[in-house]
Amino acid sequence: MEKTTLENTILKLTQDKKYKALREVLSVMNAFDVATIFDRVIPADKRPVLFRLLPKELAAEVFVELGDDIKQELIKSFSDSELSDVIDELYVDDAADLVDEMPANVVRRILRHASPDMRKMINEILRYPDDSAGSIMNTEYISLRATMSVSHAIAHIRATGFDKETVNTLYVIDNQRHLIGVVTIRALLFAEGDQLIENIMNTCSIISVNTLDDKENAALIFEKYDLTELPVTDIENRLVGIVTVDDAIDVLQQEATEDIEKMAAITPSDKPYFKISAVQTFSKRIPWLLLLMISATFTGIIISQFESSLSALPILTAFIPMLMDTGGNSGSQSSVTVTRAIALGDVEFKDIFRVIFKESCVAMMCGLALGATAFAKVFIVDKLIMGKEITFLIALVISLTLFVTVIISKIVGCALPLLAKKAGFDPAVMASPFITTIVDALSLLIYFWFTNSILGL
Amino acid sequence: MEKTTLENTILKLTQDKKYKALREVLSVMNAFDVATIFDRVIPADKRPVLFRLLPKELAAEVFVELGDDIKQELIKSFSDSELSDVIDELYVDDAADLVDEMPANVVRRILRHASPDMRKMINEILRYPDDSAGSIMNTEYISLRATMSVSHAIAHIRATGFDKETVNTLYVIDNQRHLIGVVTIRALLFAEGDQLIENIMNTCSIISVNTLDDKENAALIFEKYDLTELPVTDIENRLVGIVTVDDAIDVLQQEATEDIEKMAAITPSDKPYFKISAVQTFSKRIPWLLLLMISATFTGIIISQFESSLSALPILTAFIPMLMDTGGNSGSQSSVTVTRAIALGDVEFKDIFRVIFKESCVAMMCGLALGATAFAKVFIVDKLIMGKEITFLIALVISLTLFVTVIISKIVGCALPLLAKKAGFDPAVMASPFITTIVDALSLLIYFWFTNSILGL
Repeated sequence: MEKTTLENTILKLTQDKKYKALREVLSVMNAFDVATIFDRVIPADKRPVLFRLLPKELAAEVFVELGDDIKQELIKSFSDSELSDVIDELYVDDAADLVDEMPANVVRRILRHASPDMRKMINEILRYPDDSAGSIMNTEYISLRATMSVSHAIAHIRATGFDKETVNTLYVIDNQRHLIGVVTIRALLFAEGDQLIENIMNTCSIISVNTLDDKENAALIFEKYDLTELPVTDIENRLVGIVTVDDAIDVLQQEATEDIEKMAAITPSDKPYFKISAVQTFSKRIPWLLLLMISATFTGIIISQFESSLSALPILTAFIPMLMDTGGNSGSQSSVTVTRAIALGDVEFKDIFRVIFKESCVAMMCGLALGATAFAKVFIVDKLIMGKEITFLIALVISLTLFVTVIISKIVGCALPLLAKKAGFDPAVMASPFITTIVDALSLLIYFWFTNSILGL
Repeated sequence: MEKTTLENTILKLTQDKKYKALREVLSVMNAFDVATIFDRVIPADKRPVLFRLLPKELAAEVFVELGDDIKQELIKSFSDSELSDVIDELYVDDAADLVDEMPANVVRRILRHASPDMRKMINEILRYPDDSAGSIMNTEYISLRATMSVSHAIAHIRATGFDKETVNTLYVIDNQRHLIGVVTIRALLFAEGDQLIENIMNTCSIISVNTLDDKENAALIFEKYDLTELPVTDIENRLVGIVTVDDAIDVLQQEATEDIEKMAAITPSDKPYFKISAVQTFSKRIPWLLLLMISATFTGIIISQFESSLSALPILTAFIPMLMDTGGNSGSQSSVTVTRAIALGDVEFKDIFRVIFKESCVAMMCGLALGATAFAKVFIVDKLIMGKEITFLIALVISLTLFVTVIISKIVGCALPLLAKKAGFDPAVMASPFITTIVDALSLLIYFWFTNSILGL
């Protein structure tokens, strides 16, 4: 692996034990970059020493960005008071993630050294299901009261806001912690000091999500409404936390990656490529390969049934891959498009008839174009130019098979993800691998049906 | 299409011309929701009337969220002064997008009615290539000087910040507009009024991008460093604009959608599913279907070459789809995984040997598992249970073909996207459709090679 000049410099300084210079260099760097260097170039036994050189706040930020294995190894090297320091500097959502990721014995040690407040907040977040908005929220936010004056509010923010992840939006709550308004820091800045919060807060159409809402929906709300944070309330509309845009981006990117992996018949993983061992990668791919291999047996059975036709006219075999591939490609185009549209919130189950209508129109056009091209190609290129034994009727069978296959593939392809979603299955899993298997079998059946009825084989 | 109660209410109010009530209802709604209602339920002839009811600022926000066709139709209905009002309320990046999307005659009218300042800023943004950070930046941001006091800075923000998209981060520039520091609004709020900006600004490791950097890289920087805005500088490090996180999210989502579409052999489109006509959808899909259909001819040619083997032992034909599908699935798993890792910045060309090594390990394991399963299935289920004419050697040929095909597919699958990227092609285009065609041909060649050498056909 190539190293950058900076990486080499830091490695050299570490080997030479120039800790003063190292502290100077590291403390002006960004957390993400320091974490990358810890991961890529610092030997495991030097990491604890280097980590201790970091200023407290940066240390916590770097810690969050490290890989699980390095985190665990660092925690082992920490004294009890070092561990307390790091944990208390973490934002509570990051601390909850940490507890979620670490093995049980490390978790016990973390919780033992967290402050009682922190422990309570971590436990609260961990109560929510993994795919809920509650699981990605931060319970540290700034709340105001409607009766505060603007200068009182600013003083309150200065007094309490220092360890909060964001102060861009402030949340106004009543005595029962119901969310009754929001104020941006900009509005506070533009208001006069003696104005009351209730007069500058926005009370209409406050956008919020419930703790149990799907975190992907919460993330899509950020995209729709161009937000930088989103309040999270419980079923009684009491404010319990906020989701920040950085976590929303992570959710969106992760969901896109998961959908892509599912479409390619891989069990999704939430780690970067090189963080997964070959054995883990194998275990995420092999079940699908086996399943699809076994299900391809059906296509084999169909071919066996028509062995006599193929023996009578061997040229028919040569077209099987082309027919199956074109059917599969047509079906995938529709299923992948619809699956992504579902993920983006552009298409819902209630649109199913509009989707089928549109795909049918597209399929008619594609079927005509492909059927006509195949006819010309088979009859002119294969027969006349290459001199193969092809009759007009054979070209017709191939062209008609393509036409019908493309139409059926596209309709199956667009309907399956929507039906899967409705039935509570994952549309992305339906999208590619299964469509291909279904369409393979269908295209062969259509092919042999035309072979029988037109060629009489 | 089902309508919500709110949609029905607004439609009813529109039909009954209850404009006063409509204004009350619309003006407390979010821009995105108003735009959705304009799009879904308001008849075209009523849109201009309704649009005029919106408060100025909301009107501009709603306008940005509307579809291109509705925007164009509204612009046509605007008087000159109405057009000026809307354009001057837009953020300059949105105005530039508008100019980019509209036909030439509409653009001339827009530019004629924009203020000279706005026109200059729009033109500046339009100078940048479509995929550059410059094309998505906003040239309206708040800049401070290092010598200002905190209270002076706050007064400056109050005086100039009102029409800026964000005031969460302020940028400190020198006389030549070089970016020399950043200050968050939080730091301003926590500082004393007489402190100088130069003493509270962050000067180390300022994260910025160049106007000509790829906008996808800029968006990935948001994800890495958890930012809400990112300064954009020219080649001389002079500040020219900022990118805000909402635009970064749009870029990330759009790139993910494009990659997914390319992997499914579709020319990408940047519009939602129902905003593209059937003819446009057809035109984005048919070139790929034709290309892949024609290229599947090669597999046909290979099969024709071995017609005599297949005629001698017809059972061999039945395994062709299974062998081709399994090879294709194995190859896609690797190519899709690597393509997504490239897009997320986890893997680069210099990692190619590590990638090939890892995929080879995974491929060995998959090949062994699939080969062994296929042998057992063919020899035990097909021969002993279903009584087909299968010999030990036939089962061996199938099992060896699978083993070799899976290994070659995975190596081709992981190397092609990286080589494509290096050669300046799009890795996602290489990812699925082409891999399948290549692997189809390879798996047949391997199959017939084993058939020849082991079965002597």
